[in-house]
Amino acid sequence: MSRERIFLASKRAPVTYHRDVSGTLTAELAPGGTANVVADLASQLGVSWIACAMTDEDRHVASQHPRGMEVKVSAAAPVHLHLLQHEPAVFEDMQEIITADLLWASNNYLWDGWTKPTFDARSHRAWKNFETFTATFATTLLERSKSCPNPVYLLHDYQMCGVPQHLRAQRPEAPQLLFVHIPWPSADYWRMLPRPMREGLLRGMLGADVIAFFATRWVRNFLACVEDLLPEARVDFSSATLRWEGRTVRVEAMALGYSPSALDIREGEVSPELASWIGDHPLVVHSGRTDPIKNAERAVLAFTAALQEDPGLRRARLLVKMNPNRLSVEANQQYRDRVGRAVEAANQDLGSDTVRLVCTNSVNGTFAALRRADVLLLNSTVDGQNLTAFEGTLFNQRDAVLILSERCGAAEALASVSRLVNPFDIVEQAQALREALHATPAERAEAARRRREVVLKYDLPTWVRQQLSSLGLGTAPGERR
Amino acid sequence: MSRERIFLASKRAPVTYHRDVSGTLTAELAPGGTANVVADLASQLGVSWIACAMTDEDRHVASQHPRGMEVKVSAAAPVHLHLLQHEPAVFEDMQEIITADLLWASNNYLWDGWTKPTFDARSHRAWKNFETFTATFATTLLERSKSCPNPVYLLHDYQMCGVPQHLRAQRPEAPQLLFVHIPWPSADYWRMLPRPMREGLLRGMLGADVIAFFATRWVRNFLACVEDLLPEARVDFSSATLRWEGRTVRVEAMALGYSPSALDIREGEVSPELASWIGDHPLVVHSGRTDPIKNAERAVLAFTAALQEDPGLRRARLLVKMNPNRLSVEANQQYRDRVGRAVEAANQDLGSDTVRLVCTNSVNGTFAALRRADVLLLNSTVDGQNLTAFEGTLFNQRDAVLILSERCGAAEALASVSRLVNPFDIVEQAQALREALHATPAERAEAARRRREVVLKYDLPTWVRQQLSSLGLGTAPGERR
Repeated sequence: MSRERIFLASKRAPVTYHRDVSGTLTAELAPGGTANVVADLASQLGVSWIACAMTDEDRHVASQHPRGMEVKVSAAAPVHLHLLQHEPAVFEDMQEIITADLLWASNNYLWDGWTKPTFDARSHRAWKNFETFTATFATTLLERSKSCPNPVYLLHDYQMCGVPQHLRAQRPEAPQLLFVHIPWPSADYWRMLPRPMREGLLRGMLGADVIAFFATRWVRNFLACVEDLLPEARVDFSSATLRWEGRTVRVEAMALGYSPSALDIREGEVSPELASWIGDHPLVVHSGRTDPIKNAERAVLAFTAALQEDPGLRRARLLVKMNPNRLSVEANQQYRDRVGRAVEAANQDLGSDTVRLVCTNSVNGTFAALRRADVLLLNSTVDGQNLTAFEGTLFNQRDAVLILSERCGAAEALASVSRLVNPFDIVEQAQALREALHATPAERAEAARRRREVVLKYDLPTWVRQQLSSLGLGTAPGERR
Repeated sequence: MSRERIFLASKRAPVTYHRDVSGTLTAELAPGGTANVVADLASQLGVSWIACAMTDEDRHVASQHPRGMEVKVSAAAPVHLHLLQHEPAVFEDMQEIITADLLWASNNYLWDGWTKPTFDARSHRAWKNFETFTATFATTLLERSKSCPNPVYLLHDYQMCGVPQHLRAQRPEAPQLLFVHIPWPSADYWRMLPRPMREGLLRGMLGADVIAFFATRWVRNFLACVEDLLPEARVDFSSATLRWEGRTVRVEAMALGYSPSALDIREGEVSPELASWIGDHPLVVHSGRTDPIKNAERAVLAFTAALQEDPGLRRARLLVKMNPNRLSVEANQQYRDRVGRAVEAANQDLGSDTVRLVCTNSVNGTFAALRRADVLLLNSTVDGQNLTAFEGTLFNQRDAVLILSERCGAAEALASVSRLVNPFDIVEQAQALREALHATPAERAEAARRRREVVLKYDLPTWVRQQLSSLGLGTAPGERR
């Protein structure tokens, strides 16, 4: 399997370009999350990668390399990157309205159905622009793969949902996998979107041979959405397949836990100031970007309740580690502010400086916290997967207890080796925290050992293999020309 | 089938007692909605009815009639009513927290998952009290039916969800039907509730032989919830049955449209002042109580958009008819205020007094509006059924066009004879309004005739027969000793 054959598409490129103070162009690796994971995948396979130019400098670089360029994104071999220049209005509508505002909210259950959502003429125009975005991506992929007799398309994350239908129409024989990294909602919730969008996206997706999610819960929801809105599809829940336009589409869960090469490069020392605050206190860590789904506010409430009910735990401390993410989005800003207020209230109730909020863009700072934790509390209101549950398990050095939201994709893989909680229930989370903080070293060591054993199965090379073999491609990753 | 055999339970009694200024006790019939429908059902069958004493005067009357009393709730024969006195704290927690706050929100998708819901110690105490409420109801039903050799239990609406399990344990052979009048949410959404509650309620419900909803969408969601949370249940979606504790439970949709006897007594003249505002203007009517699900705000937005896009429609007027309902609930108050502001904004955009909001507790006023309408816009964000879609069709005298939310239970019965819309999409609703206001008299007459034909099938006697025959009881309603 070689880069001449595999064509990878994602909204975000593995690097973005900026000009430093001297005016020199510099490439920065994308910060954590999906982009990293896809970059690791790309390095494993060696691919031709099509992604969006995001900044003015990206567009400058793209113009200078109309046929793409070699980019090194990891210790492994470089990938061939083609940066796609969308019309600014098209890119903006895709980015700010269709994905950030509509799809992020629909797929993460963020509407109350009353004050939100409201779809107006602006929403419908944005959808038209999203169709243009999709068509441009498909055209570029087809153009790049034109001279390849047997291309394979890997399309990553929900921004690509419309692309498969276009590829199928032009290259009907080429294997295609679409991987959605976020949750998929139930049929009633997906149905809230405007008709052209909710049906158009499903039709777009069904061009793929394989549609993959991190968890079987999202697979089932997706099948239910198709059954609800596309009566001409024949859905078989037991085999997780459906018949569509004379083809069989498979819908599969492929869990990912961690990338060994990405973990290897992490360093993890907390700052001296933070280290002195932590001291030898039992430490609970909540970690996640500034996004409402990460649910730090209820983590603070649960920690407060646990300590108030059990004075024997009063030495414990809670570190809320946030990385700032898209704070131009109003909900993200409000979320950060709400968490800030919750932390203040907790310190008033528990004694000052029992809870700390650290909101800085330091991946190593996050890993340092994960390493030092006695309890990891990852209580997302919903989450496509949550890699931190896996990475934290491997990076932690104190046999930390893992308290995990039952609404993370990760909850399926880790059900037997973590304490699952309802993220809305303060009482249940407080109870889990009390038990975790009272666990004996022997109990913790045994639980952490069992959990590491499970986590180790979910490495990136295995995940890449799953994707290829689901398309009937047997070549092992790493096997390149 | 006689009152000695059928035992009906519901939270709300058909009458509540008040003292007038002279201190005399007077009985008032419950205002519209579920209570009316169940009262009609009771009158049809002649039943022994157990319900809650709601006011101090109710409790006074209950104390004076420890063995119940005869009450006349319609033109038909009286029912035997037993008012149940709960401990005030128990009743309050059932009423304000478990049903109004939690179940109403969970089953109508009213949480954004971020700012709400949060379940704390108070929520868990309320759940304990709800268990007491449930046990008291069950004990009273068992006590009242003790001397009956072959009782039949009809349990109406979601406040009764815990009761079937208790009855099954004590009278395992007695047929039981539980009818839920509100929507049932998808598995992911139902799962947001605290564990004891989400599982306890399902177990409680599965004591019934038949669990009924107004629409098959709610049936499917309910089955999915059971499959998700109770692995020991064997769910069969194709037959809508499940095996539970050695029994088969059937889950059925039974649509109700209108009660002929209730419609007969309605009068419908608009006030002279309102009549003069309406004049001969084309009139769009939105009708619903002060509850966020009724979605009047987006109705106003859609009407505004329709008139702005099509100046030929500038003579049209919109009447938003609300009946005040539980305005002590914060969301209901906020909803009324938001609609008020939307109406003000619309009149600024369209010219003063194009849109009117009438918020008075007059059932006849509502029927007068339904009678005069040229277009009925019933765009609930979600709705267990929405009887107004049926009643409005029969009561209207101008061949009104019906624009109906696809998220009402009623949308299943009326799909072929109404214009279904996505309630969140202003563009789609505005388009439907434009088409409705441009429809010719002949088109309207034909559409209304076809709709009346369908609506007439969904009468209360048929609905009552469905309930009895689902329990294997063939006796026709009205056939009494």
